Amino acid sequence: MARPTALSGFPEWLPEQRIVEQVVLDRMRATFESWGYSSIETRAVEPLEQMLRKGEIDKEVYVLRRLHASDDDSSGESPGSALGLHFDLTVPLARYVLEHGGHLHFPFKRYQIQKVWRGERPQEGRYREFLQVDIDVIDVDTLAFHHEVEVAQVMSEAFAGLPLPALRMQVNNRHLIEGFYRGVGVLDVPAVMRVIDKLDKVPEDTIRDLLASEVAVTGAAADLILAFAGISADDSSFADRVVALGVSDPLLDQGLEELVRVVDGTAPLRSDRFSVVADLRIARGLDYYTGTVYETSMAGFEWLGSVCSGGRYDALATDGATTYPGVGISFGLTRTLGPLFSRGLLRATRSVPTCVVVAVADEGQRQASDGVAAALRARGVPVEVSPSAAKFGKQIRYADRRGIPFVWFVDADGSHSVKDIRTGVQVDADPGSWSPGDLDRHPRILFEPEPTKETPR
Amino acid sequence: MARPTALSGFPEWLPEQRIVEQVVLDRMRATFESWGYSSIETRAVEPLEQMLRKGEIDKEVYVLRRLHASDDDSSGESPGSALGLHFDLTVPLARYVLEHGGHLHFPFKRYQIQKVWRGERPQEGRYREFLQVDIDVIDVDTLAFHHEVEVAQVMSEAFAGLPLPALRMQVNNRHLIEGFYRGVGVLDVPAVMRVIDKLDKVPEDTIRDLLASEVAVTGAAADLILAFAGISADDSSFADRVVALGVSDPLLDQGLEELVRVVDGTAPLRSDRFSVVADLRIARGLDYYTGTVYETSMAGFEWLGSVCSGGRYDALATDGATTYPGVGISFGLTRTLGPLFSRGLLRATRSVPTCVVVAVADEGQRQASDGVAAALRARGVPVEVSPSAAKFGKQIRYADRRGIPFVWFVDADGSHSVKDIRTGVQVDADPGSWSPGDLDRHPRILFEPEPTKETPR
Repeated sequence: MARPTALSGFPEWLPEQRIVEQVVLDRMRATFESWGYSSIETRAVEPLEQMLRKGEIDKEVYVLRRLHASDDDSSGESPGSALGLHFDLTVPLARYVLEHGGHLHFPFKRYQIQKVWRGERPQEGRYREFLQVDIDVIDVDTLAFHHEVEVAQVMSEAFAGLPLPALRMQVNNRHLIEGFYRGVGVLDVPAVMRVIDKLDKVPEDTIRDLLASEVAVTGAAADLILAFAGISADDSSFADRVVALGVSDPLLDQGLEELVRVVDGTAPLRSDRFSVVADLRIARGLDYYTGTVYETSMAGFEWLGSVCSGGRYDALATDGATTYPGVGISFGLTRTLGPLFSRGLLRATRSVPTCVVVAVADEGQRQASDGVAAALRARGVPVEVSPSAAKFGKQIRYADRRGIPFVWFVDADGSHSVKDIRTGVQVDADPGSWSPGDLDRHPRILFEPEPTKETPR
Repeated sequence: MARPTALSGFPEWLPEQRIVEQVVLDRMRATFESWGYSSIETRAVEPLEQMLRKGEIDKEVYVLRRLHASDDDSSGESPGSALGLHFDLTVPLARYVLEHGGHLHFPFKRYQIQKVWRGERPQEGRYREFLQVDIDVIDVDTLAFHHEVEVAQVMSEAFAGLPLPALRMQVNNRHLIEGFYRGVGVLDVPAVMRVIDKLDKVPEDTIRDLLASEVAVTGAAADLILAFAGISADDSSFADRVVALGVSDPLLDQGLEELVRVVDGTAPLRSDRFSVVADLRIARGLDYYTGTVYETSMAGFEWLGSVCSGGRYDALATDGATTYPGVGISFGLTRTLGPLFSRGLLRATRSVPTCVVVAVADEGQRQASDGVAAALRARGVPVEVSPSAAKFGKQIRYADRRGIPFVWFVDADGSHSVKDIRTGVQVDADPGSWSPGDLDRHPRILFEPEPTKETPR
């Protein structure tokens, strides 16, 4: 076969990029589990008719058929049961909760890390296959508000230790929005939300015109709505500014109190990497959100749009008898890493897990080198034996090209030494006790606005 | 939506089963990385025409089309570029090596853990979507033999610590088979291999008839071939038995030496969970194997066939100018776990990651409980705060139903205590220093031939 070319929209990472992805995923998973979230994976396919109920992205679904199925049998089973690849992890979660609800414990806290597929036109940061990282809490009939604080706390903690560009999570609350709009006399709340949602893209004057022409909101009411949408703060001071606008409604009071709890609850987790900010202009387009809404921009990559979004929904799923409310946040890992990789901003300290290469003096001595490797491995040091008994210079280059920091030598007299090939320093060593430094044992990831070599070679 | 029903062939695990799967995957991944194997993931799709080159399972491929693509455009792009879901991880690896070869370091050691899809008729142990765990070593032009020993060592070590039914890896060597057959005068070696491959299913007399009728091998030659196929040993004694048959051929000598190295090289890693056995009847059907071949049966589940198979291939991929030989083994995780789950033989010690539930005396005290949880979490203890300030009995039942071992109480006077709800023992505790035992911190997995509760409740 000739050298294949890349398939647009289906990104694949090189091994060193995959290490970066693994470090991010390991960190997120450890955080989720430390908060008691269970992992699930759902099948990649859902019945097409279920996926299309939400309606909005039907064009983008990939439909399956078995190669040798008959023409009118697109699922491989029977007409009407066509299967498509899931385009998010929320529709599958809803179906999973309905299907397995009798075996789940509620509130059900789960995280889910899986690929999803959308047949969109590919461009940077928009792919046809990409990895999503979701957390959700689902309960039966009612869901306590504190879970809306918790999911923001969990994501804050997951991101806190990651060397990514600063992430800024903007939060708002549908009760607050609806209460405020009702308080100024708006009748069609969703219509006003749709207009305000354009604030990022068009000038305020245009928004004012749209409020007048499309939803008949003018004068003082329009002033109040625009003043409200302009409020943003990284602490609870936003609440005073809302109150100062003089609008009153019971739902507004509830929404204010809820949003203050989200902002205050995440304040202790704030860092230079991740912050949570009340921003009263954001609404998230999706109609099913009913409480807190979340979206997240990445510093320097605001053009990507939100990389981590979600909200509270009163009816994630219902089977008629039982309704399952939930709150969740979804992080788009592939679309976050892709632009960072293509700019060379994020890299691993080496391209392989290996920390030590054990040199082989000649093929007859391979077993001795295997023994050293086994001893190091038993103490948690990732180690390879040199694939060939080439000249030592070539074996050192084998390590150097992969960024492996150490090469181990077994001398003919049975003595051992290990060389840090970054510094050239070589010391006697015992395979039963030697350890690399904690920083060298496993690859780490580095965010470097100006890519440079970490250490001179 | 009405309660959905399961989709045959697309198994989904409950959270406690997923914990079992995660423990297995974590163990395997840690082993692979400790041997220096890099993780890669390939896209789920491959061009259909590439996938069908190997020919044998074209019926089983799922083909994609975008829902709103025109009828003659099954890929969503253009006619002739149809995409299918990958049915294994070897075809994608070959394509990945050709596509990204310029950015890879050889020998390239990689592991890959991904779902694959086949439109087969589902039955127990045979699914339409399932998880495969592959390791391979790929080199350019030539691949040193010691890698054929290494992949068996890596799998031995990966399985050694896992509480699965005993796994028995049977190994053979194509050089040995071919050399022996040639040595007894066989002209069509593949044809004899195909006959001998039926030894598991039909009586020896039938094999003898087939050797005579299909490949014209009779008398002493047939006796020798059947004697050879009957040889099996868990140490290098098999070699003496082959030599005693009195057949000679240079390729036979090479194959014997190679197979002895695989058996001897894995002997130190043998345990009651995993053993490697030379078994001279196995050949693996696939034509492209050229050296060591591996297959694995699970004690009590021999009817599943091989759960972990592979071999050496001289041409995994070629772009005309360069040929990439390789050796690899693929473990079918879903088909191994599925039958164990359905028989209740394998379970986790609890259904969630959580080790401690912090009780909430009343909603006004939730913040104090959150503080305890944060302190425990900071020291690596997975912890949840009770979702409600219900009566303590109900909060304890919340933990008990999930198998969570500890419940933490914050008294009105600020003192703390923790109760092991399995024993009922409650002791004073400090959130800044208390730790669960190592056995309780994270869920463990248990293989229980006769399912019983681990500890009385």
